[in-house]
Amino acid sequence: MTVTLLPMAEPESTVCCAPLTRETIEPEQADLLARKLKALADPTRLRLVSMVAASDGEEACVCDLIDPVGLSQPTVSHHLKILMEAGFLTRSKRGTWAYYKLVPGALGQLSQLLDVTASR
Amino acid sequence: MTVTLLPMAEPESTVCCAPLTRETIEPEQADLLARKLKALADPTRLRLVSMVAASDGEEACVCDLIDPVGLSQPTVSHHLKILMEAGFLTRSKRGTWAYYKLVPGALGQLSQLLDVTASR
Repeated sequence: MTVTLLPMAEPESTVCCAPLTRETIEPEQADLLARKLKALADPTRLRLVSMVAASDGEEACVCDLIDPVGLSQPTVSHHLKILMEAGFLTRSKRGTWAYYKLVPGALGQLSQLLDVTASR
Repeated sequence: MTVTLLPMAEPESTVCCAPLTRETIEPEQADLLARKLKALADPTRLRLVSMVAASDGEEACVCDLIDPVGLSQPTVSHHLKILMEAGFLTRSKRGTWAYYKLVPGALGQLSQLLDVTASR
């Protein structure tokens, strides 16, 4: 059996079932959803996700993300790590630079959980 | 000119324009969205919003919210206040108790901003 090191990185399987407004959320589901929201609830991280999502193939080099947010590379990398651990981004290294890619469905799934009008 | 005391309480007018994944979010919009997400990014507050949303007329008495979350009334009221200040709930007092009502569109709007597939 494989040990999952990043349990938050599986958007398809970890959050499930009930959109927030259809029934009382279970405490465990609330914990998980809160962790995901917390990872996004930062202006810099929102801008980073937005920039990655707006890039070709929904993927961006960390080298292109540093200037726009106006922070140091270690700080940007720290924010990207939080987004990665929460399952919003994946990381791959090519040559000198790390590339961050949007996890398909991760934002959409969160969105659906929050949506009053989401059909089940 | 009217001074807006709770700028977060106007979901229709304060967050606008670009879903998160369509273009780079503006810093001001990122700040506002982060504040809203922060207000929701707590397991107890998610459960409270969920319970209010699942109630008749999307409104619940604080007296019915205390037992399910297993916290003291002051703590529950504190969480409800944060949700109110972020524009997710409104409060009205009837007799002894306060009633909290879901702000129509507040969750849906947040959801749309996060949704990759939202059409503009």
